[in-house]
Amino acid sequence: MTCIASPSLPTPPDCPLAEPSWMQRSRGLILDLDGTLIRGHEVIPGAADLLSRWSGRYVIVSNNSTDTATSLALRLQALGLPVKANSLVLAGEQALHHIARHHPHSKLMLRGSERLQACAAGLGLTVVTQDADIVLLARDVGFNYTALQALTRELTSGAILMVSNGDLTHPGPNGSVIPETGALLQALLACVPGTRADILGKPAPMLFQEGLRRLNLQPADVTVIGDNVRTDALGAARLGIGYLLVGNAPHADAPDVARLLGATCPRRHVLPEGVVSGNDYQ
Amino acid sequence: MTCIASPSLPTPPDCPLAEPSWMQRSRGLILDLDGTLIRGHEVIPGAADLLSRWSGRYVIVSNNSTDTATSLALRLQALGLPVKANSLVLAGEQALHHIARHHPHSKLMLRGSERLQACAAGLGLTVVTQDADIVLLARDVGFNYTALQALTRELTSGAILMVSNGDLTHPGPNGSVIPETGALLQALLACVPGTRADILGKPAPMLFQEGLRRLNLQPADVTVIGDNVRTDALGAARLGIGYLLVGNAPHADAPDVARLLGATCPRRHVLPEGVVSGNDYQ
Repeated sequence: MTCIASPSLPTPPDCPLAEPSWMQRSRGLILDLDGTLIRGHEVIPGAADLLSRWSGRYVIVSNNSTDTATSLALRLQALGLPVKANSLVLAGEQALHHIARHHPHSKLMLRGSERLQACAAGLGLTVVTQDADIVLLARDVGFNYTALQALTRELTSGAILMVSNGDLTHPGPNGSVIPETGALLQALLACVPGTRADILGKPAPMLFQEGLRRLNLQPADVTVIGDNVRTDALGAARLGIGYLLVGNAPHADAPDVARLLGATCPRRHVLPEGVVSGNDYQ
Repeated sequence: MTCIASPSLPTPPDCPLAEPSWMQRSRGLILDLDGTLIRGHEVIPGAADLLSRWSGRYVIVSNNSTDTATSLALRLQALGLPVKANSLVLAGEQALHHIARHHPHSKLMLRGSERLQACAAGLGLTVVTQDADIVLLARDVGFNYTALQALTRELTSGAILMVSNGDLTHPGPNGSVIPETGALLQALLACVPGTRADILGKPAPMLFQEGLRRLNLQPADVTVIGDNVRTDALGAARLGIGYLLVGNAPHADAPDVARLLGATCPRRHVLPEGVVSGNDYQ
């Protein structure tokens, strides 16, 4: 397993002890993936330990809209993280399940990876290249000007817009910045201003609710651990799920999950000051 | 010449006559192209008449960043409009002239048409595919996810961002919506938030100033005629050039240039109420 070098360890975060620690309170965990457990092809310190200690009691809920659970599980296993496909709740794949459940007879224009295209076919969805009822925008590395023009045409003709996730970027290897679905969405919204985008990924409730269902637990019994205050913390707080944040951002409870495992913090339920509870992406 | 069918003509606009009419006041005209003289491959009523009456006393100043003056002049001539290349001031081409004049030794990453690429080479600019000093974004029908990633990398590495024009869309044939440079810019700014984009096209002064230079006239002697309050009117008003608007938008002085030719309106110097004087694109 590739493991990011850990800088010199500070002492575990100094947390108020008015409430029992997050570990005492949590019967299950909803974990973010990128920036929390992995960063590109690197495993973040403590990730393997966390998954091992909470084996069978976690789900990973990610705004990833490129992979399917099956393909991603294999990739995580290759990194040394023993994650099973049924522990993975992914924005792109879940968006397709949502459409198959609620709009089974719709004509769908899908901009997303080949894996998502195959997933849509497997769910029996009718994928079209024009005259769509629904446009689903996911992280599409095949996105181009012609696609932007085609999507613009569908939306001006009345198709409704669903988006796997609103993330603008995600962190890549060596500090690089990887364009995400939300950045493509900005180009599209610029062409069809006033369009309502139904963003299904975090911080919207859909993925968290699927996570709770798979854990078979109530919000009060679960802790969300993530690195993004506007997706992980906001989504958790909206559903009444306690949360903790890792990373280098100002609101983090610990720099990584290794340090969080050594901390006795209580879970957080209120958003940090200055973080608005609205959806920044819409 | 293809000419858009003219609906039944209303009487010329009823204008206050406190000032002489725009035609009495104008020694030269700065004309917008798309939406003012042409729409796609169609000539707007009155365009040929306007150009003929003001022959030698107009320039066309356009946020077009696909063509060069030479290529566009040929296209306009094919439509029956006798426009010479030296009457055309175009955002993409002028952006390259600006860079060649002010940053002649810079390494340039250019996202734009083949015509702009050839223009850059003709100006002796050093066009690179990485490690750029300047990124110039123009209307790039070859724009894709890989380009977005490359541009993101250059900007995070410190390249400065210039943009031919900030238009989000332009009107295409049959009411279609054509994605413009500004829509691509939105995707890029989403990936590198906080980046300052130096937008060179209208409403910025560069193109209008070049237009005045070619007419060899002062702002007081010129009238801008366009269809866009946020590019044509705003840019004119900022430089103290009187303007008039055509089209179907709420602030138009006449539905098309044919009707404007029959009107005795004074020029306008103040922006319509509710139009902010800031640059909406930045």
